Amino acid sequence: RINIERLWGSIAEMAMIGPGISGGSNRQTLTDADAQGRALLKRWCENEGMDVGVDQMGNMFAVLPGTDADALPVYLGSHLDTQPTGGRYDGVLGVLSSLEVVRTLNERGIRTRHPIGIVNWSNEEGARFVPSMIGSGVFAGAYSPDFALSRTDKDGKIFGDELRRIGWMGDEPVGSRPMRAYLEYHIEQGPILEAENRSVGIVTGCQGFSWLEITLTGREAHTGSTPMSMRANAGLAMARIMEMVQQLAMDHQPDAVGSVGQVFFTPNSRNVLPGRVIFTVDVRSPYLAKLDMLHDEVDRAAHQIAAELGVGISIAPVGRVNPVAFDTELASACRQSAQALGLSHMDIISGAGHDACWLAKVVPTTMIMCPCVGGLSHNEAEEISPEWAAAGADVLLHAALAIAQI
Amino acid sequence: RINIERLWGSIAEMAMIGPGISGGSNRQTLTDADAQGRALLKRWCENEGMDVGVDQMGNMFAVLPGTDADALPVYLGSHLDTQPTGGRYDGVLGVLSSLEVVRTLNERGIRTRHPIGIVNWSNEEGARFVPSMIGSGVFAGAYSPDFALSRTDKDGKIFGDELRRIGWMGDEPVGSRPMRAYLEYHIEQGPILEAENRSVGIVTGCQGFSWLEITLTGREAHTGSTPMSMRANAGLAMARIMEMVQQLAMDHQPDAVGSVGQVFFTPNSRNVLPGRVIFTVDVRSPYLAKLDMLHDEVDRAAHQIAAELGVGISIAPVGRVNPVAFDTELASACRQSAQALGLSHMDIISGAGHDACWLAKVVPTTMIMCPCVGGLSHNEAEEISPEWAAAGADVLLHAALAIAQI
Ligand SMILES: NC(=O)NCCC(=O)O
Ligand SMILES: NC(=O)NCCC(=O)O
Repeated sequence: RINIERLWGSIAEMAMIGPGISGGSNRQTLTDADAQGRALLKRWCENEGMDVGVDQMGNMFAVLPGTDADALPVYLGSHLDTQPTGGRYDGVLGVLSSLEVVRTLNERGIRTRHPIGIVNWSNEEGARFVPSMIGSGVFAGAYSPDFALSRTDKDGKIFGDELRRIGWMGDEPVGSRPMRAYLEYHIEQGPILEAENRSVGIVTGCQGFSWLEITLTGREAHTGSTPMSMRANAGLAMARIMEMVQQLAMDHQPDAVGSVGQVFFTPNSRNVLPGRVIFTVDVRSPYLAKLDMLHDEVDRAAHQIAAELGVGISIAPVGRVNPVAFDTELASACRQSAQALGLSHMDIISGAGHDACWLAKVVPTTMIMCPCVGGLSHNEAEEISPEWAAAGADVLLHAALAIAQI
Repeated sequence: RINIERLWGSIAEMAMIGPGISGGSNRQTLTDADAQGRALLKRWCENEGMDVGVDQMGNMFAVLPGTDADALPVYLGSHLDTQPTGGRYDGVLGVLSSLEVVRTLNERGIRTRHPIGIVNWSNEEGARFVPSMIGSGVFAGAYSPDFALSRTDKDGKIFGDELRRIGWMGDEPVGSRPMRAYLEYHIEQGPILEAENRSVGIVTGCQGFSWLEITLTGREAHTGSTPMSMRANAGLAMARIMEMVQQLAMDHQPDAVGSVGQVFFTPNSRNVLPGRVIFTVDVRSPYLAKLDMLHDEVDRAAHQIAAELGVGISIAPVGRVNPVAFDTELASACRQSAQALGLSHMDIISGAGHDACWLAKVVPTTMIMCPCVGGLSHNEAEEISPEWAAAGADVLLHAALAIAQI
């Protein structure tokens, strides 16, 4: 079994880098805090005798040699970047539990046939640079490196420049690491495991999602002297599209969710009708046909709402991951480990996107999930218990041993 | 008659200070550009032999002596500050037409019994510091200087600090200038005069307005893994409140308008349900009872909407000006001047708030209005014709002469 005190302590140490305002984390990708978090991970991995490589997307790979020089490594990992007001476990639990697996193996003097690797993927969150999961996306061939490195944040800063600035652009070509398997341990970020009273989730797949960035062009005008009948009100069009997204998701519950998290008004002045409103609609479903339907329906209905209000509209797809089914053999290795450890577990589909979704396209992949209190994530108040954390990390250890072979 | 080439040239010269991005102006209050605009006005006034005083709110007063040392000055004026993406006439037309009146008098060697003054009020727009019309509001006793000087902008900068920083905090106590009358010439910012084919509006009063800053507190959560039923969605509550404001205003048209111009989402991340949404509702009516009703109904309905969604709400009144009736004698002096000049004119109620609304509380006050193309204002594309501009400026000249007595 892993050492939960050590794991818990490492999580607390990482959380001191890029602290949030109320106990969470603000260690957004490619910031100075991200660079510090990466350096700490590198140091910890090197202390375990691992070789640390970095690719041109800043993805970090640490490898503990195996006994068979020809065997492909089994990678465990997740991400260290966070939302602007994120929790301290989202991503971090997976990376540091992978480290804890290696620490446990070293402590016991266990050597596996396959090498064991730890990965930290760049920009999983997508909070600063869109799309999310871009480091793993390039690794899996979903995006070109040029596309990824040219993404800009809201201040116009460029991904490639920022990656160079913080000193974490490596020289390894992206996607060049062969892998026997990829295993990711992550908090659920939803309420199901807690409600079902299980301490481990065996993830059989992820729901897909589509992000639509909608730009509405109204007519800037005085809020006082412009009659109601003469308005081209981009803000009102946005409000109606938000309600439409809500209704659409409600109509297809529980196989759909729909949300708006980001909104920009221009000029954003109290007595000016907005001339431009840019916002992002996020729709998700575990079923590809339903995801397509949600995307198409948002597109159609948004155009109709804008037209009715005399507001211009353009819609750009800015993020898309199809529903994914994970490797069934790996999932059963995890299930058997949970069983053998006597842990309460259940199969689950991830509501959030993960780096594992991209990895599944190129490598046998699965995930293990940890319950979180109240299903709360992307919130500084995100919480898990040490018991839950340990349960999933033990499954990760045992599944890794099964796959990498003692 | 005034010299329209000279007036038009001065407007163009002022527009070079704090230029917008597409022909308009961005000369927000208490910025460096505002300081430059003030300095140019001061120089122009001093060239006309006027004494320039500045009060502790930064309000500027230039005075051309009259022939009677005991007669109170007649002040003409408006404001030089603009919206972030404002037009070049909003406010500026009134200030520079007042200057043009003085230039015309000087050119003709005309001396009035009452002195003639020019005023530039601080922060009329309310775009950077809320409430709007704060310089004139303190002058009229509606706000204390302490309240006004402690207002902060969205970056946390303080009104008093910024006023000192740009070098325009004067030593004159605010409100200490006795006035015979105050006359403000301003663009209509609405469509009525153009639609009615009149080149001059005689303003008999202003509609009142109320600004409600609404803070909604939801629960930050992951957009993918948080079931629809478990959300406290502050963004959705905002959308519903925006629709409610729209319906309320439509139901009371044409005696009501209602709008939302400013919105802030926190953390404003695509895959996070917003934990906090702050936005401002602007409702207006020419009738006090209706304005009260609109304010109360927004307050009541917004609380209900938030409660239905399990979202916390607090509402702060951040700007309030009651409907105002202007001085009837001054209005008839303007009407007679328009008549005598053979100009097409009509009585009108201002849809926007103006410094004149506050002045009316302490000094006999009225306004003259200039049509604007398509009723468009608070938009860089704001446009007026030189003929319209000249018509109102001529009325301002003649009315000023009538009131200040030759
Ligand atoms: N797990 C997670 O928050 N991933 C970011 C991409 C997403 O929005 O699902
Ligand atoms: N005229 C003008 O834009 N005044 C600002 C205050 C208001 O919003 O009416």
